[in-house]
Amino acid sequence: MANPEFDIRRPTLVGDTADIHLQRALHILRGEGINPTVTMEFAPARSGLYCGISEVRALLERILPQTGTEVWSLQEGTDVEAREVALRIKAPYGAIGLYESAISGILASSTGWATAARECVDAAQGTQVFAAGARRLHPNVVGQMDYAAVIGGCFSCTTTLGARLAGVTPTGSMNHSVPLIFGDTISAIQAFDRHTPQDVSRIALVDTHRDEAEEAVAVAAELRDRLRGVLISTAQERGGVTPALVKEVRARLDLAGFRHVDIAITGGLDPDRIREFVAADAPVHRFGVGTYIASAPPNCYTADIHEVEGRPTAKRGRTPGITDSPRLDRIM
Amino acid sequence: MANPEFDIRRPTLVGDTADIHLQRALHILRGEGINPTVTMEFAPARSGLYCGISEVRALLERILPQTGTEVWSLQEGTDVEAREVALRIKAPYGAIGLYESAISGILASSTGWATAARECVDAAQGTQVFAAGARRLHPNVVGQMDYAAVIGGCFSCTTTLGARLAGVTPTGSMNHSVPLIFGDTISAIQAFDRHTPQDVSRIALVDTHRDEAEEAVAVAAELRDRLRGVLISTAQERGGVTPALVKEVRARLDLAGFRHVDIAITGGLDPDRIREFVAADAPVHRFGVGTYIASAPPNCYTADIHEVEGRPTAKRGRTPGITDSPRLDRIM
Amino acid sequence: MANPEFDIRRPTLVGDTADIHLQRALHILRGEGINPTVTMEFAPARSGLYCGISEVRALLERILPQTGTEVWSLQEGTDVEAREVALRIKAPYGAIGLYESAISGILASSTGWATAARECVDAAQGTQVFAAGARRLHPNVVGQMDYAAVIGGCFSCTTTLGARLAGVTPTGSMNHSVPLIFGDTISAIQAFDRHTPQDVSRIALVDTHRDEAEEAVAVAAELRDRLRGVLISTAQERGGVTPALVKEVRARLDLAGFRHVDIAITGGLDPDRIREFVAADAPVHRFGVGTYIASAPPNCYTADIHEVEGRPTAKRGRTPGITDSPRLDRIM
Amino acid sequence: MANPEFDIRRPTLVGDTADIHLQRALHILRGEGINPTVTMEFAPARSGLYCGISEVRALLERILPQTGTEVWSLQEGTDVEAREVALRIKAPYGAIGLYESAISGILASSTGWATAARECVDAAQGTQVFAAGARRLHPNVVGQMDYAAVIGGCFSCTTTLGARLAGVTPTGSMNHSVPLIFGDTISAIQAFDRHTPQDVSRIALVDTHRDEAEEAVAVAAELRDRLRGVLISTAQERGGVTPALVKEVRARLDLAGFRHVDIAITGGLDPDRIREFVAADAPVHRFGVGTYIASAPPNCYTADIHEVEGRPTAKRGRTPGITDSPRLDRIM
Amino acid sequence: MANPEFDIRRPTLVGDTADIHLQRALHILRGEGINPTVTMEFAPARSGLYCGISEVRALLERILPQTGTEVWSLQEGTDVEAREVALRIKAPYGAIGLYESAISGILASSTGWATAARECVDAAQGTQVFAAGARRLHPNVVGQMDYAAVIGGCFSCTTTLGARLAGVTPTGSMNHSVPLIFGDTISAIQAFDRHTPQDVSRIALVDTHRDEAEEAVAVAAELRDRLRGVLISTAQERGGVTPALVKEVRARLDLAGFRHVDIAITGGLDPDRIREFVAADAPVHRFGVGTYIASAPPNCYTADIHEVEGRPTAKRGRTPGITDSPRLDRIM
Amino acid sequence: MANPEFDIRRPTLVGDTADIHLQRALHILRGEGINPTVTMEFAPARSGLYCGISEVRALLERILPQTGTEVWSLQEGTDVEAREVALRIKAPYGAIGLYESAISGILASSTGWATAARECVDAAQGTQVFAAGARRLHPNVVGQMDYAAVIGGCFSCTTTLGARLAGVTPTGSMNHSVPLIFGDTISAIQAFDRHTPQDVSRIALVDTHRDEAEEAVAVAAELRDRLRGVLISTAQERGGVTPALVKEVRARLDLAGFRHVDIAITGGLDPDRIREFVAADAPVHRFGVGTYIASAPPNCYTADIHEVEGRPTAKRGRTPGITDSPRLDRIM
Repeated sequence: MANPEFDIRRPTLVGDTADIHLQRALHILRGEGINPTVTMEFAPARSGLYCGISEVRALLERILPQTGTEVWSLQEGTDVEAREVALRIKAPYGAIGLYESAISGILASSTGWATAARECVDAAQGTQVFAAGARRLHPNVVGQMDYAAVIGGCFSCTTTLGARLAGVTPTGSMNHSVPLIFGDTISAIQAFDRHTPQDVSRIALVDTHRDEAEEAVAVAAELRDRLRGVLISTAQERGGVTPALVKEVRARLDLAGFRHVDIAITGGLDPDRIREFVAADAPVHRFGVGTYIASAPPNCYTADIHEVEGRPTAKRGRTPGITDSPRLDRIM
Repeated sequence: MANPEFDIRRPTLVGDTADIHLQRALHILRGEGINPTVTMEFAPARSGLYCGISEVRALLERILPQTGTEVWSLQEGTDVEAREVALRIKAPYGAIGLYESAISGILASSTGWATAARECVDAAQGTQVFAAGARRLHPNVVGQMDYAAVIGGCFSCTTTLGARLAGVTPTGSMNHSVPLIFGDTISAIQAFDRHTPQDVSRIALVDTHRDEAEEAVAVAAELRDRLRGVLISTAQERGGVTPALVKEVRARLDLAGFRHVDIAITGGLDPDRIREFVAADAPVHRFGVGTYIASAPPNCYTADIHEVEGRPTAKRGRTPGITDSPRLDRIM
Repeated sequence: MANPEFDIRRPTLVGDTADIHLQRALHILRGEGINPTVTMEFAPARSGLYCGISEVRALLERILPQTGTEVWSLQEGTDVEAREVALRIKAPYGAIGLYESAISGILASSTGWATAARECVDAAQGTQVFAAGARRLHPNVVGQMDYAAVIGGCFSCTTTLGARLAGVTPTGSMNHSVPLIFGDTISAIQAFDRHTPQDVSRIALVDTHRDEAEEAVAVAAELRDRLRGVLISTAQERGGVTPALVKEVRARLDLAGFRHVDIAITGGLDPDRIREFVAADAPVHRFGVGTYIASAPPNCYTADIHEVEGRPTAKRGRTPGITDSPRLDRIM
Repeated sequence: MANPEFDIRRPTLVGDTADIHLQRALHILRGEGINPTVTMEFAPARSGLYCGISEVRALLERILPQTGTEVWSLQEGTDVEAREVALRIKAPYGAIGLYESAISGILASSTGWATAARECVDAAQGTQVFAAGARRLHPNVVGQMDYAAVIGGCFSCTTTLGARLAGVTPTGSMNHSVPLIFGDTISAIQAFDRHTPQDVSRIALVDTHRDEAEEAVAVAAELRDRLRGVLISTAQERGGVTPALVKEVRARLDLAGFRHVDIAITGGLDPDRIREFVAADAPVHRFGVGTYIASAPPNCYTADIHEVEGRPTAKRGRTPGITDSPRLDRIM
Repeated sequence: MANPEFDIRRPTLVGDTADIHLQRALHILRGEGINPTVTMEFAPARSGLYCGISEVRALLERILPQTGTEVWSLQEGTDVEAREVALRIKAPYGAIGLYESAISGILASSTGWATAARECVDAAQGTQVFAAGARRLHPNVVGQMDYAAVIGGCFSCTTTLGARLAGVTPTGSMNHSVPLIFGDTISAIQAFDRHTPQDVSRIALVDTHRDEAEEAVAVAAELRDRLRGVLISTAQERGGVTPALVKEVRARLDLAGFRHVDIAITGGLDPDRIREFVAADAPVHRFGVGTYIASAPPNCYTADIHEVEGRPTAKRGRTPGITDSPRLDRIM
Repeated sequence: MANPEFDIRRPTLVGDTADIHLQRALHILRGEGINPTVTMEFAPARSGLYCGISEVRALLERILPQTGTEVWSLQEGTDVEAREVALRIKAPYGAIGLYESAISGILASSTGWATAARECVDAAQGTQVFAAGARRLHPNVVGQMDYAAVIGGCFSCTTTLGARLAGVTPTGSMNHSVPLIFGDTISAIQAFDRHTPQDVSRIALVDTHRDEAEEAVAVAAELRDRLRGVLISTAQERGGVTPALVKEVRARLDLAGFRHVDIAITGGLDPDRIREFVAADAPVHRFGVGTYIASAPPNCYTADIHEVEGRPTAKRGRTPGITDSPRLDRIM
């Protein structure tokens, strides 16, 4: 994968997002005139899918001196065990100390999102999954979440920013607002068809006004071969999306002659619910996962000094000296 | 609370963090020459502590036209029920449509963090709580998390950015790196004392090299009256922090004549564990909470159109027309 | 309550539905020329609502001699404790022995059904409940089940036979077949309206072809003031009936001006689910309960001889002699 | 199996046990002068052992016209999956509509009983099981229950009616009343032996007056080679029947030289308890099951129209058109 | 309670039952010529009923010098909290060090037994309880267990040794061997009556040969007014003792005119089962508890030095200095 | 294994630890002049590791006459099934009757302890286990517990008495008192080294004053090659012993060049916790188990007469006659 262009923000660069004790530590060491070379190791609390190193690297390129530093890491998107060293940085403490929080934080959030995405992708057993969590998470990290979801195996995502970082084409349908503004679904899909470029797939949302099966057949009858698929995201108040509902919509579409129309679903999906659809042989072409990925708890990383000027050390509870980690590659 | 200065990022303003179907909806409506005034209501999935409206307002001020719009909201930091309308925006769809994801996302994440903080504060029954999650979350949202934690009742947080947004003074001690670089805790605390301005409280970390009680008494013997407190964050590998440990450190400090030294703790705290300390009457002066707040799942908001040009409407599963919501205040 | 006219079947009268050991016992005693007067006590295994004594009495009137017998019982429809004596019969063994199975069986099934109905009625806290289990149980006992349900507090039931036994008017709507045969719900409700006597309430089923809210508003618009109510029994495949669905249908009916139209619901209801509707303040006017009552396990009765010719006796595990039972009334 | 002679009752034939909406539907269609040919499919809610079609067929022979109808069904006593079509009837709606409740109800109850019996038979792993539930269920359906139990694999049952329907010989012992009337078990068994035809097996109940092992040895010493077996149904108040009790009675019988005497047990048996006896190698010759079969919940059947005059249709939540069901045979 | 005469065994006095590290510690200190006065505190791991101090005192009287020592303790038989100091000994280490294991062990076992007994006594709500565990525990500690059970509230026990230590009269019936040797229960009870002194209550075991109710009535008919009671300890293989069995035996005794005969029960009783009998109003006069008391896990005591020659100290994890314990009394 | 020399106590020999009904039985039989030869069988309630027969044999040698008796038993230390006959004694009732409680009690306690030890040994998968329960159990049975633990597979125990009975060398370290009296661990270990014979392994306790890893390295630096190992038994208040702690101590010892120093652990270990250490590959050389073995519930034995003077008999609930038991060997 080519290098995505992560934009490192100024508050991070000046240390405003760092724990304040990091600022104080630098102040003390400068005061004492000490700047030893330290080796710091980062390891996650739980096993998962390692993600975030591309962004961390973009940060390190802005802060590390040209010489005297080494950075070793696992590859973006590989499995990582609980407490396995995933990243090792050897650098003057003065250059790296301020960024311990930021590096840990990028890895924690990204690994959490990518791992959740991977669980969904694994559960789908080959059916495509896309990330649809943009409206459930703060926009400042939506791009990173969508990027991590693609690292976790999603074929696409719903935001332009995430898609650009991940190098994929964003995916989406028409939202509920358009049929509500038009007052009926058919007029809405006609307008969608009129104004949307030909290279964008026509995917119709069919749960706005009427019964899903009824609306699906109606929009198919309108757009016919130009309709790529329908998206069902029935509200929980109406039973949510179920395998039986997907099967019935499929049957009614087939009976009406629209076998070419795909069915995508979204709404409260997680690995367990995806497995239910797979086990029931429900004819789903794409699963959209939002909340589960957006709510993934960060997989917290410890950041521990294991060497100071070549001397093995460690705080109580950690083993002194550099941890043997043959899976790491030198990346800087 | 004065208006915090949230910095709305360009990708959000141009719609790059929005679901792409929002961009397409705008494109269709512009193509049709339609721009109706719509009323959109935002409601959380679960009950919680409402947070994020200050930042949403900063966004709305950048995008809404001067006239013809109304914004109604609950107050930042008040309780909100599951499915209660917390925010209502009446505006031309062309002005607001693109930002549905961003508004929902800001509220979802912020409400999640603030609610988690509030649970900890409630559990502490009057003992101070501070947010210490900076290294567990992506730096792009660390400021917002710390702001939300203060809204939730924390007296402070560990980042400069969060503290500035929330209008408080950041809190922190000395981190583990300094004693590791110095090789022993006493030299480290001496250097800390030499180089840190007098208005910063001297708080010593006492679990780096030796037994906590032993180090606590040693640093107190060194700084004497200048030591404000000690911070214990014993690694899980060494049993973590427990009420019995805190009591013993307290007893050994008292026995040595250092009754003025406070004890703060951090490390894996959540409401249940805080309640254990409170129930055991453990002499804790400040609880630092990191992972629990940083891992708080977003409280997802639905964003539903309930009126189009004054006509009641709603997608299936929602009730048409404006929801009766006497608790809302007009804020724009 | 007047005496319902239960029809005792011939196989029961000749002992064909009795355990064969009862036939053999009579044969032995006749062979020996013995016919002692015995006192037999019937007691249920679990607490519940006592039901079936009216039918048992109809049986006893066919079989007991005019003199020398006594029958004592609790009242139909009163609470009975586990192992409490509910019925005591003193009669020549030759007259009563063959019917021990039949008497126990009538009480067991009827008490089971009535108790289940009572649980639903209690859960509904004043909202009407009707029995709708006819198609879930063998037709030979459907009348008895519906009778027992009314004893348990249901205001009505769906079968003519049950209603006649219980002295109530049967309740019902139009079934799914009619709109399916007509091809749409409006034509069906028009025909229903044309051909149904004026004293039968017009209740429309609104989940056959389209979305429930849509169909409800459509039939109301057609029949207007002549429409008494709608019945929702959404299939599980479409999420079943939920409090949120009922609230939305109510809101859309009200918005369209049809506040006079009642809402009844059925489909998988049991006491727990009824309590959910009550707790959510869902605007339900009538609950229809089928499977829960029809599946009620029989509350098995023991039938034990406690006296033979005035001499106290009992099998091992029972206490000899007549049990003190002040709540019994002599009924024959 | 030969056709059992089920006696269809008059209230069922005139529709008194049907849901009243079925009567109304017929009234409407007659009023409109419509009588389309419909195809109705019946499918159970859960998997189980299909039972009741013999009785349904006896009903259909009374109501369906000679021509223009088709009935397809699984075989009586075969396994059926959840939601699998078990019965399909193509007939004029006017001929079949009134009986939808009765057909569903017969299948629901009978499938429930047969499935419960099969579970016990499977648990017994080759040891004989008989149905003994007559006194736990309303006598109007006791014959059907016993018939269904034999379909489920029981070798016999305790009622004459059930045995006649199922084409087996009823089984039974002497009941508790006889020894209670005689005052001791030995006199009772002597009388039993005197008056019972030679082709009826002498099976003695041995828990009435004394310890089971003591009574078993005593009756064996009395009847000697004429005693076929003993039946133990110890009351729960005395610990019920346990594997250890059966083993001890066996040992004491053997020690006294009565190895030819069989042991049958009854009282609260269900598949789990039967498995305990089998796992403990308890020397049981016959298990009698009452409550478990009599309490089997009906396995409710849906009855759905899938074609009207050859046109595919279905209510929402079902798939239109005839379901592909290769396991069905045409039976009428 | 007078001082019971505990017999301290030689292996304990010479340290053979002590952890060998205690012997080594004494050897080291003697080698160094050190013998400081230490203060040792004993505290249980869980809350319970404090027991064993009488025996510990008998040990201390054998080992402590007359002067320069202090012993403080809770009273025998009072409640003690988890981790509460129950015993404090101030003595030269050379005099006390070897006995740390023995003191802890006596308290641990005795507190465990007494606590279990107390739970049974509490559950019995006033009905008498006796200890019957002698055959479930090593005879070397059976006396101590029975003593502790009386401290816990039992009115008596079954061993002569335990009764002597506790100052009560032992209780017992006739065991199963006698009726087995005589071949029937009546001959056995006659012999019992002939040879047992008049001041010993005649209590008959009634579950050896025949049904309990049958045997109870038979022995009562034999001894009449001389029979004090019956003891039921039905084997688990025969259902064990149940409330229903006790009620039936009571009823059959009363019916036969033996209202003066008491009923005691034993066999698998614990607090939960005792509560069942009490809740069911079963007419039990005495509960015999064996396994539950004999299996009580020891409540382990920590033994920690808190002062050495008046100087506060403690191992890590304990608080240095003498614990404030106002409930202690000085006993030596 | 040679015959251990168990010391049978006088209260047991004179029957003071027996249930008093045994004394009464003997009195009755003497009064009647009866002394039949009986065969008594002992069987445990649960499966386990048979232990105690050596001590029982020592008792029997004191009480049984030389002729006319037979004793059959399983081997000490073999597996025994639930309810399997483990011991059979044929003897005049007058010689054996008084000791039924004592024999059962010895077997019950010893089998319980040995079984618990065996579970720990199995969990340790080859790593050595020693018994360390002396201070958790009454000293009167500490020797028997330690003996049983060795029968269960422990390589040693901490008491001299247990070690002598089991024929092993006791194991132990230095206890907490010595470093507390000396005020620091180094002086204590020096004294230990000075005064302890050379054939006793130097094992240092390293959790008294300071951090475990720190103290371990310090004592190793002092004794160097003379140090055999360290023992860690960190208090629960400090997190107890964990696999991570053991690994860190190992790493810090290795880093300092002390690879020859073993690590033993103790404190709250049971089979589950031992399995955790094994699964985590923690470098433990010896597990010390105290509470788990000392708290093992006795495995109660039934003692039943199955023959009287060659005639098969048994109480109700047992099978008369001698049980076929091919695994028994004649031992007396």
